Amino acid sequence: MIQIGIVGGTGYTGVELLRLLAQHPKVQIRTITSRQESGNRVSNIFPNLRTHAALSALSFCAPEDAPLAECDVVFFATPHGVAMKETPKLVESGVKIIDLAADFRLRDPAQFEEWYKMPHACPELLAESVYGLPELARDEIAQARIVGNPGCYPTAVQLGFFPLLKAGVVDVSMLIADCKSGVSGAGRKGELSLIHPEISDNFSAYGVGGHRHHPEIEQGLSAMAGKAVGLTFTPHLVPMIRGIFATLYAKLTDDRADVQAIFENCYAKEPFVDVLPEGRLPETRSVRASNTIRLSVMRRGAVVTVLVVEDNLVKGAAGQAVQNMNLMFGFEETTGLTALPIVP
Amino acid sequence: MIQIGIVGGTGYTGVELLRLLAQHPKVQIRTITSRQESGNRVSNIFPNLRTHAALSALSFCAPEDAPLAECDVVFFATPHGVAMKETPKLVESGVKIIDLAADFRLRDPAQFEEWYKMPHACPELLAESVYGLPELARDEIAQARIVGNPGCYPTAVQLGFFPLLKAGVVDVSMLIADCKSGVSGAGRKGELSLIHPEISDNFSAYGVGGHRHHPEIEQGLSAMAGKAVGLTFTPHLVPMIRGIFATLYAKLTDDRADVQAIFENCYAKEPFVDVLPEGRLPETRSVRASNTIRLSVMRRGAVVTVLVVEDNLVKGAAGQAVQNMNLMFGFEETTGLTALPIVP
Amino acid sequence: MIQIGIVGGTGYTGVELLRLLAQHPKVQIRTITSRQESGNRVSNIFPNLRTHAALSALSFCAPEDAPLAECDVVFFATPHGVAMKETPKLVESGVKIIDLAADFRLRDPAQFEEWYKMPHACPELLAESVYGLPELARDEIAQARIVGNPGCYPTAVQLGFFPLLKAGVVDVSMLIADCKSGVSGAGRKGELSLIHPEISDNFSAYGVGGHRHHPEIEQGLSAMAGKAVGLTFTPHLVPMIRGIFATLYAKLTDDRADVQAIFENCYAKEPFVDVLPEGRLPETRSVRASNTIRLSVMRRGAVVTVLVVEDNLVKGAAGQAVQNMNLMFGFEETTGLTALPIVP
Amino acid sequence: MIQIGIVGGTGYTGVELLRLLAQHPKVQIRTITSRQESGNRVSNIFPNLRTHAALSALSFCAPEDAPLAECDVVFFATPHGVAMKETPKLVESGVKIIDLAADFRLRDPAQFEEWYKMPHACPELLAESVYGLPELARDEIAQARIVGNPGCYPTAVQLGFFPLLKAGVVDVSMLIADCKSGVSGAGRKGELSLIHPEISDNFSAYGVGGHRHHPEIEQGLSAMAGKAVGLTFTPHLVPMIRGIFATLYAKLTDDRADVQAIFENCYAKEPFVDVLPEGRLPETRSVRASNTIRLSVMRRGAVVTVLVVEDNLVKGAAGQAVQNMNLMFGFEETTGLTALPIVP
Repeated sequence: MIQIGIVGGTGYTGVELLRLLAQHPKVQIRTITSRQESGNRVSNIFPNLRTHAALSALSFCAPEDAPLAECDVVFFATPHGVAMKETPKLVESGVKIIDLAADFRLRDPAQFEEWYKMPHACPELLAESVYGLPELARDEIAQARIVGNPGCYPTAVQLGFFPLLKAGVVDVSMLIADCKSGVSGAGRKGELSLIHPEISDNFSAYGVGGHRHHPEIEQGLSAMAGKAVGLTFTPHLVPMIRGIFATLYAKLTDDRADVQAIFENCYAKEPFVDVLPEGRLPETRSVRASNTIRLSVMRRGAVVTVLVVEDNLVKGAAGQAVQNMNLMFGFEETTGLTALPIVP
Repeated sequence: MIQIGIVGGTGYTGVELLRLLAQHPKVQIRTITSRQESGNRVSNIFPNLRTHAALSALSFCAPEDAPLAECDVVFFATPHGVAMKETPKLVESGVKIIDLAADFRLRDPAQFEEWYKMPHACPELLAESVYGLPELARDEIAQARIVGNPGCYPTAVQLGFFPLLKAGVVDVSMLIADCKSGVSGAGRKGELSLIHPEISDNFSAYGVGGHRHHPEIEQGLSAMAGKAVGLTFTPHLVPMIRGIFATLYAKLTDDRADVQAIFENCYAKEPFVDVLPEGRLPETRSVRASNTIRLSVMRRGAVVTVLVVEDNLVKGAAGQAVQNMNLMFGFEETTGLTALPIVP
Repeated sequence: MIQIGIVGGTGYTGVELLRLLAQHPKVQIRTITSRQESGNRVSNIFPNLRTHAALSALSFCAPEDAPLAECDVVFFATPHGVAMKETPKLVESGVKIIDLAADFRLRDPAQFEEWYKMPHACPELLAESVYGLPELARDEIAQARIVGNPGCYPTAVQLGFFPLLKAGVVDVSMLIADCKSGVSGAGRKGELSLIHPEISDNFSAYGVGGHRHHPEIEQGLSAMAGKAVGLTFTPHLVPMIRGIFATLYAKLTDDRADVQAIFENCYAKEPFVDVLPEGRLPETRSVRASNTIRLSVMRRGAVVTVLVVEDNLVKGAAGQAVQNMNLMFGFEETTGLTALPIVP
Repeated sequence: MIQIGIVGGTGYTGVELLRLLAQHPKVQIRTITSRQESGNRVSNIFPNLRTHAALSALSFCAPEDAPLAECDVVFFATPHGVAMKETPKLVESGVKIIDLAADFRLRDPAQFEEWYKMPHACPELLAESVYGLPELARDEIAQARIVGNPGCYPTAVQLGFFPLLKAGVVDVSMLIADCKSGVSGAGRKGELSLIHPEISDNFSAYGVGGHRHHPEIEQGLSAMAGKAVGLTFTPHLVPMIRGIFATLYAKLTDDRADVQAIFENCYAKEPFVDVLPEGRLPETRSVRASNTIRLSVMRRGAVVTVLVVEDNLVKGAAGQAVQNMNLMFGFEETTGLTALPIVP
């Protein structure tokens, strides 16, 4: 049993981490922090955890009092900028770090500063850290001390474009990612724009001028393509709780490409990537509360369209973090992540 | 054309008032105030109003700059406690007042202070003011200078119990009001408990320990019964935008009472109360965006059950306010309130 | 007052037509047909219409008994293939026809047969008929005896691409329309795939292999471009009742094009098309229950993105049909269509 | 590993049984039947099951070809009336039966016939069968060959009233159960009244004249009270997928009763019943996808109110069936039922 610390456990990724880790056979939650809820029982904030023996007794701890240095791994489910400040001394104590925020996602500290409006606190550790997309960097993650867990959109879009870019069959100068997200992706916070009467029975686009996931996706796609790509990324908000649906468009450059075979071959051995048979289309609920990413691909004329679904809180956040932890500690990659999706 | 002022126009009752008054043939919106949005166009906050000639040019005005004293009537769509401070000098200027908050609902200033945690600012005007439930006090409203517009739950519950209490056929010591409300009833504010992922696909009770509408309902029912009633009131939150559904239970004391006839006779002439034929049940969307209250009644053994639906923002707030205005200014009572409900 | 007939009034476009026409000052609903509901009161099926004096007394009539030939105009809110059979004899009787289904949308009878799996019943009347998109064919509609009312997606996509194609500033060989629709667009029918637990908290794509709106959109865009366009059209289903959101992508061919100005100039005089200021993004609820189409346009690199919202039952169906009727009978184009959108 | 048969696996309770049993460590799904989907893979109908090794290969079997007699237990997730026909020969073969429909719920065959409009096919087995509410009949269930799994409403209402009736502190002549259910409770079928645009943003009552769960609840409550009770039961439909919320009212007959203590004592040892601390209120999502029933109780004057939440597909159907199976086969009662609720 490895010892787990969670910093910032009151958000949606925090409670999802709790849910997954509480049911993971190889870990023990040692401490969970929250300044605001310090001393309060976790199950007071999240009554769904009341009936779990271990969790029902767990209380939030003030960050300064938490025995983080005694943990084997610490998850940061905090706002951007927190993890990079705490990481140096924890790493020095031999603690491994998985950051669910953006501190260890962008490779270039200057780009981090541009998009997150703060200088990076530990560029040398950023250089060492690994971007935690297991399907692309399984071995590096297994060796890493610090993992930057990918954003929800970047996970879906990168895994959706990857087979095409790897095969080199599309025009990378005009890649289009039309993405739709459930509202939990915006976090657990009291903002007017997120209240039910503003969201329900409504559909909108947002952040079109520049979403922070744009450089993260571009970084990944450019690495796959071996050159700078041209990406158009449009996020939309769907009146649903969980789920991301990414509709990706690219122009084929190789008219003979068998896109279905390209996808099936690329992901044949991946436990969490499910390529649908030709003609089947995915829906977000088919992965609800699970770590699976499901996709389909089709050609229409010269345009290839990829449809990708994931649960933004699982494969797009907490589940992928657990998958990364499994790799970092030599557990079977799927440990604790095999619960079936909830339908309906 | 009478001149209208709206104080506090950025909430849901405010924008609903705007929508209704903009389409009312006998009024002109002279001014609308908001401290926070002062100078900002109304249509910047509510883009649905962009294409309306008059509204698209209207801007929010700081309260102190608004020509309220030059209006014929001022609507307060503000938090509790604002209207009672502004009312004395406006009434002195000859302006009529319709308060959509609670300042002029409870007849007893002590009870107001108990429930709203502030002393009443003008008890002498409270004494003069009229509780604006047209179906019960049409003539008094027509003569009033100040109208306290009823709360959303109190409108549904009072109109639902009224025929039974008037006919004297139920045991008033145990009246039960199991009420369900759409989320817009909680107002347009950024609270964590109201965000979409907390509300959607969920159903909860709230305020069971003591909701401010409880004394308001009790006051009305006791007046109808001619004595103190025993009321159990349970509000619940429904994952929908608009609508109140009240399920009312009482024990019949007169076994021969024809409850269907009692309701049909009681509301035969009411333009906004629709008693369904026996065996038909109401649903909230059947009154969506309209001022109609629709209800059905049935006996099961000794228990009479009344089902009531209303749109909490219209008959439960802005629409009833316009209905009151029509009475106060001698307009046809239904003026500006005849638009059909939106289904689906 | 012109006399109106509605054939097939039990679907969502039917009840929306009823709602709009009942509040239209220049028309009288003479008859409404439904084989299944023959003899039943309209307000029994749609209780929201109970309180309307004229509608509450209206009953469905069997098609063969309906005095359609005595009407000035007949609306067909029927499945595809009904209107084209009834139209010849009605037109001969001097009745004008507005078909809300697809019988008079595709100019080429062969294409109609290919997509709708039935031969066209009156190709000569198809040749005479006018495609009812007022912003593109106002004068022809005013003269028409038969109008094919556009589909919901085609209205949004065509009005979204029109300014760019008219200005000739995009590569028409790769136009992408990523569209999202509320569920009412699928019609009022008891299908398993449409029930609430299948739709709610879920997002899916559908009809990707070939949606019937594809040739209709392509026909319109090709006419605008003066040559065959390459269109990729992906419809998605959103867990909301009303609304279409179309996200359109095209590659700019003219680097100096001021797309904002192109849109503003193109639609400056249109009463139902609202171009948002630069930087503002539309949302579907901002047009809920109204005939307005609202859009924004932006450049990101060489890609121009257009965001379009409409209410699929109003501008995408019944509202546009009334707009066409207004043109055909010389009424002010906006008559009966000025009600403000319902928000929240 | 015991061998499981599921008859009728295409409904919501069927797929929920699959989900729970697939993750149960002591069982193996031997066969699942569906006449309509015979030969089709289960994962074609429910793509959420694609990534599960065993389930992804499972196909539906025609009922007559299914090796039901070789199973240790057969679950019927069928319409009412199917199980009672198949049960006699299966029981004779030594197979245990758990019926999720109503065939073995009502003790009196005449009452069954009255409410389900068919004579009971095996009244002698009905007499032997046990009503499967473990909290009330744990020992009988452990010995049973046939278990009638309770309805969703009856589970919530009976467990909500039980402590009060057992303690004898309320007037049983007027018990009120105001119940609200998510739409999955109506089953997986293509009915017009269930489609999303009819349900969403709407709230309605239904079946008020006589719901089939009424006699089932009354039977249970009367047994608890030791005499006939007077029950008023009002079911409502909530625009959400899963969840039942029951608000129960009764009049206290013993003024000194400590209702909080009565509930806490009654359910102190129950693994799936969670009594909330005084002042806390339950919400349906706190039990989403779990077998927990959560409740709170409060006194207001002479009226005691109980609030109960459950997941209608788990504790209200498939989960309780698995709980019963665990008892019948001597497994730990919570086996396979410990997954945490999904929030948000």
